[in-house]
Amino acid sequence: MRVLGIDPGLNTTGYGVLEYARGQVRLVEAGVVRGRTKGSLTARVQEIYDGVADVITTLKPAALALEKIYAHYDRPTTAILMGHARGVIVLAAAQAGVAVHDYASTQVKKSLTGNGRAPKSQMQLAIQRELRLARLPEPPDVADALAIALCHVWSQRAEAMVYRDPDP
Amino acid sequence: MRVLGIDPGLNTTGYGVLEYARGQVRLVEAGVVRGRTKGSLTARVQEIYDGVADVITTLKPAALALEKIYAHYDRPTTAILMGHARGVIVLAAAQAGVAVHDYASTQVKKSLTGNGRAPKSQMQLAIQRELRLARLPEPPDVADALAIALCHVWSQRAEAMVYRDPDP
Repeated sequence: MRVLGIDPGLNTTGYGVLEYARGQVRLVEAGVVRGRTKGSLTARVQEIYDGVADVITTLKPAALALEKIYAHYDRPTTAILMGHARGVIVLAAAQAGVAVHDYASTQVKKSLTGNGRAPKSQMQLAIQRELRLARLPEPPDVADALAIALCHVWSQRAEAMVYRDPDP
Repeated sequence: MRVLGIDPGLNTTGYGVLEYARGQVRLVEAGVVRGRTKGSLTARVQEIYDGVADVITTLKPAALALEKIYAHYDRPTTAILMGHARGVIVLAAAQAGVAVHDYASTQVKKSLTGNGRAPKSQMQLAIQRELRLARLPEPPDVADALAIALCHVWSQRAEAMVYRDPDP
């Protein structure tokens, strides 16, 4: 099972693709889709859509995992701009038949560290260990994307265990 | 020149297409693209994209006019959801090569009534007169879409006058 985790942002959208098979999870690819910061909103929205659609076509994830919409933005404008990015990302997934799942930020943190209020550094360390990375995941957009993808993998595994998957 | 005005919303997106030729503006078509209110966010985003892309393909506007992003939302969640709708609308326009223009709410009101703080009823009346409609434009999403399209038409006409269009 391949999972695409995304941290949407109009300037920088982080993504990470994980593969989960035979009880092991491994990193397939991670990176950022950058909007041209000097481009118009229209140009940036199109770049994010094209970038994410390209990742989906190339790496063929079965699911997209995103953070749930929440209302704790400092500035409403930031929330609207993030909404633009999130909208075209969800569209790219839907058009490719990729199922969309979302998780609350506290759920992601709890799933990776056992602590729903874990600081960024603790999250980075958990991701590094779980994916056996040579160093801490950077930049923050990529770390957040990997965290949400891992959260989805754990939640799928938990469901499989509840139903006693005959072929684990 | 054909102009598509849109009032983006995740539940109801209003649109209106106007044609401006030889100093006259006329209504080509107006309506709403409804999201299935019971559907998931993903399903609604896809419906809005498909609906707007269909209007663009069928009615072939040269420009899309939208309200500028602003920060006066009561609830940040509303702002994020509106951002999802606005993002896929702008994407549909960009993919079809339709130029995107945006106008502040006060600019739209001033352009139609001379008053940047005009109430809805005054705006509806101005739209009705300008487009020679049999009755007031309804629902509010359609009225807002027509208002922004008219604002774009006036702004284009004003530019033409500044440059003394030889064939007005």
